[in-house]
Order: sequence, then C-alpha cells, then structure tokens
Amino acid sequence: MEQKFASSLLENAVVELSRLPGIGRKTALRLALHLLRREPREAAALGRAIIEMREGIRYCRVCHNISQEDVCPICASSSRDARTVCVVENVKDVMSIENTGEYHGRYHVLGGLISPIDGIGPDALEIATLVERVEAGDIDEVILALSATMEGDTTNFYIYRRLARFPQLRVTQLARGVSVGNEIEYTDEITLGRSLLNRTPFADSFAN
Amino acid sequence: MEQKFASSLLENAVVELSRLPGIGRKTALRLALHLLRREPREAAALGRAIIEMREGIRYCRVCHNISQEDVCPICASSSRDARTVCVVENVKDVMSIENTGEYHGRYHVLGGLISPIDGIGPDALEIATLVERVEAGDIDEVILALSATMEGDTTNFYIYRRLARFPQLRVTQLARGVSVGNEIEYTDEITLGRSLLNRTPFADSFAN
Repeated sequence: MEQKFASSLLENAVVELSRLPGIGRKTALRLALHLLRREPREAAALGRAIIEMREGIRYCRVCHNISQEDVCPICASSSRDARTVCVVENVKDVMSIENTGEYHGRYHVLGGLISPIDGIGPDALEIATLVERVEAGDIDEVILALSATMEGDTTNFYIYRRLARFPQLRVTQLARGVSVGNEIEYTDEITLGRSLLNRTPFADSFAN
Repeated sequence: MEQKFASSLLENAVVELSRLPGIGRKTALRLALHLLRREPREAAALGRAIIEMREGIRYCRVCHNISQEDVCPICASSSRDARTVCVVENVKDVMSIENTGEYHGRYHVLGGLISPIDGIGPDALEIATLVERVEAGDIDEVILALSATMEGDTTNFYIYRRLARFPQLRVTQLARGVSVGNEIEYTDEITLGRSLLNRTPFADSFAN
C-alpha cells in the first residue's frame, strides 16, 4: 500500500530505516515517530554514531576482524599468543570468545561457512588467507571454533584438509559435550554419545 | 553482561541503536554489523535521514500534526474543507485517514488519549486548543475518530462535554459496525449488537 506521509523528511527516514534487516515499514514508522518525540540531540547522536561507525571501521588486514586501524588491536598486541590462531565464522564470534576471558591467542574471521545450498563455496571465505598465514610460519596451532552444524562441520573438514600439508601444525576444535547447567535427561543423544566417547579425567575438572 | 567490543565506534553505534523502542542490545549489534557489511553510502544515507528528519520536522501550530512548516500543508490548503475538523489520537491516525482518500477536511491531533491508569489527564492532551479552534468560529462539525477502546470512549465523552456549549456545532463519531470483509460468525457480539441498532438503508450502500 502506498502510504502518504505528512513530510518528505519523515518518508525518507522511514525508507532508510526499513532497509535494515527485520525492520518493516510499520516498525520503521514507529521508530521514526519515536525519534520525533525525543530530544533533537538524541536523534543527532544516533545519526552521527551510524555515520562515524561506517566511516571509521574497516577490516583487519591480518585476521579480518573489524578494526579502526589497518591491523586490529588483537593482532597488534604483543601480549597475545601469536602462535595460536582461532578460526571463527564472524565478528560476533570473536566477541563471544573474548568475553569468556579464556583465550589469549589471535583470530581468523572466515566471514561465513561453506554452504552449497546458499551457494557459498570456500572461495567466498577467508580460507586462502588462513592458509597463507600458516604458510608464513610461526603458527603452532589452529583452533577450529565453528558452529556444531552441518555447515560448520563441512567447513572444519575442508580447512583441516587444506592444512594437512603442514605436519608441524596442530589443528584442534572446540570440545563437544554436555553444556554447563544442562541436565542429562534433556541433552540430545548425539551430544551425550560424543561426550561419553570423549570423556575426560575427573581430576582435570578441578585442576585449574 | 559487559560485552567487549572490537571498536569504540561500533560500541557507540550499538548503544545509540539500542535506545530505540523494541531494540535490545543483541538486535542493535546485529543492525550495526549489517550496516558495516553494506556500502558506506547506505549507512551515511540512514544517518543523515535521521538527523535531517529530526531537525526539519516540527508540529503544526494549528492541528499539531507533524509538519516541515509552521502550519502543515493540510491546514494551509485552500482545497480542504476548513469547516470540518477530525479529532485523532496521533500522527499515524492522520496518515491512516489520509490513505482512505475519503476525508477532505482538517485534523486535530490530541497527542494521546485520556487514561487515568497511565496518569494521562485531559490537560496533557491538545484538548484546550481544540476548544479554542471551535471558539474561534467557522467550524461546523467535529468528527471524533478515536479508537473504540475504553480510553477512546472516555476521551470522546470528555471532548463531547467540553464542546456542548457550542449549540451550532455538530459532534459526530466514526460509524461502529461489522468490518468490511469480516464474517458475521466471527464478529464480536457488542459490535454486532451495535451494528443492528445502527442499521442503515440498504440503498445507501450502492448510492455513491
């Protein structure tokens, strides 16, 4: 339905807001009218934050994480372990792993997973650059931290094969098992089966 | 949870986006990362549209609809019937009625409905200015086009009483009845009862 707007400025804002994913025309109108009811400096702050973010952020030349510099702070930091590279699907996964506080190595952001159904092949991802990083040397371990889905498993396996020609390199993946806080009764059978096969010494659980 | 961001520019954009109603921190991050993946000019267009809308739009001095001028195009138009004023709750309702193409008079936007539960009394709404417009003369009819809810009915009745001292003024309200396309079986009993009481000559339905 063609909607008549009281103002071309409002219409323009609604059109631009509704380009965002998951935001339809109705929601966009609601957001625009909300901004009109608020202080002008609030809308200005939002507008400026969006423009400045897009202008100021690029991708790290080394790991392809977002960065305000040519090389991101994690790749540039001398206190991070440069010999370990954690391979993740996207920028959000870097944040999730950083938030655990358990990882002190570097990253490599693939930018997606191999998915033949969606037409995403290995060449669409940053896999060649990962191989180059390994080829350049000084990397002992590549941790595959991809989702436990079919696409994740496919990508894991593809990368594993591409890295097979580096005999000194350890390729590991995230442990699969019962989630912390989950009850056995509600854990799916595949996870339960795997976590039985990959059981760990009990003493390890309080060792550190 | 305190989330670490790869960039303060990203964090700032997420904070500002999450001030919008119905947009939490996770959605805000998703929107920001979406904008980062798109062309820079797309983010710039969105940012500018928001700033320009908020700076350029004010409220019409006469009807309180949003406007880019001191008086909105509807109030300023000589082709609209100045003797009929349609009272609506908000700016969106003006758009809805304009979209019907059936109304050629002017508007008066209350900015809400009387709702004692939410602490909204008549003084918080543009009711006094409506009475002033009627007092100034040249208005024949006030159409109450408020929602068919308790708050709408309360507001209708309050305005009706405030306008009772103008004997020449007709105060009307939207017809209540079976929605076009609705089946009788699924129409609620109150609506069905009212539409029986307020039945109209069948010939009227194809007269215009």
